[in-house]
Amino acid sequence: MDKKRLEQQMEFIVEVDKVKNIFRQTYLADQNRKENDAEHSWHLALMAVLLKEYSEEEVDLSKVILMVLIHDLVEIDAGDTYAYDAAGNIDKREREVKAAKRIFGLLPKDQGMEFRDLWEEFEAYATPEAKFAHLLDNFQPLLLNHASDGKSWVEHQVKKSQIYKRNEHIPETSGEIWEYMQFLIDQHVKLGHIIDDMQKED
Amino acid sequence: MDKKRLEQQMEFIVEVDKVKNIFRQTYLADQNRKENDAEHSWHLALMAVLLKEYSEEEVDLSKVILMVLIHDLVEIDAGDTYAYDAAGNIDKREREVKAAKRIFGLLPKDQGMEFRDLWEEFEAYATPEAKFAHLLDNFQPLLLNHASDGKSWVEHQVKKSQIYKRNEHIPETSGEIWEYMQFLIDQHVKLGHIIDDMQKED
Repeated sequence: MDKKRLEQQMEFIVEVDKVKNIFRQTYLADQNRKENDAEHSWHLALMAVLLKEYSEEEVDLSKVILMVLIHDLVEIDAGDTYAYDAAGNIDKREREVKAAKRIFGLLPKDQGMEFRDLWEEFEAYATPEAKFAHLLDNFQPLLLNHASDGKSWVEHQVKKSQIYKRNEHIPETSGEIWEYMQFLIDQHVKLGHIIDDMQKED
Repeated sequence: MDKKRLEQQMEFIVEVDKVKNIFRQTYLADQNRKENDAEHSWHLALMAVLLKEYSEEEVDLSKVILMVLIHDLVEIDAGDTYAYDAAGNIDKREREVKAAKRIFGLLPKDQGMEFRDLWEEFEAYATPEAKFAHLLDNFQPLLLNHASDGKSWVEHQVKKSQIYKRNEHIPETSGEIWEYMQFLIDQHVKLGHIIDDMQKED
């Protein structure tokens, strides 16, 4: 047995335990507390399996799943940057690249490179798998915000235009999921949980 | 779009959010709180990718990953039964089968059957994928117990023989991982975190 290899894998596996303490702005469906990155990533992986059929392009499901399982590991060092935090998003890339080097660097070289490449592919948002992973990453908090009576939207006074801007590439990834997302957004605009700054003129 | 199908998928996705509130007996590495089922399942999925190379038998990684992602969903209704809780383990199967029917029954029939079959395969502990999933399910809490200074072992006054009994099929699944597990167990026996009731006579 290659003891060094196994030790590197073990160090990584224990290190990533830390994402269980990185909390997001989304509340769980029961509204009692915010969700952490590990729970979020688990939810995305399961959703990838169930919702793959709605992707406009053919996707390699194994790749999507691994991508969503690791997509937030950089937040161990870089922290969670809220989607609608303009200031925090300015140096996000720089902080996350530094984190990726350290965290994926804990692994044996072959596995570290595989994970780093996959994370970069996710970030580049270009392949069918990266697009579908981003769809899940955007849709899941929207669904939880819906299930938790829009609590996070209200707390952050989120505007409809911000949600539309953030999801601008979703329609091309899945017309059906985007239709459902709009259906949810409209409900919460009507309920006053999302600020309506996009009123139609017609 | 088949609206009923999508609605069923959405209902399931929101329902399974509940596993984020099902807490296990294992502490996170930082010892501050116990781990929940969603975090545990996320950790197992990632470990499946990294440790697949140690399986004695060839495994279908996608199948293992999906298996570990869903293996604890029945606990939404049946609750978490601690590995060393003899009384709780008596009617565990009955409680969990009932839960599986309800929870997987929320999904469209094809997906519900796929998940139910996969969960039954995990429970039957016979295929290479089920064996490897069980290895991960046993090894991950052991690794976290190690990282958290044996806190859970101490609280439950766990005996070495109980750990060996629980892991009796691990050596055939992976000799290398079992060797590492023994190395960890021995350390915590020496530290007094695990009760040594298997002292060698030689």
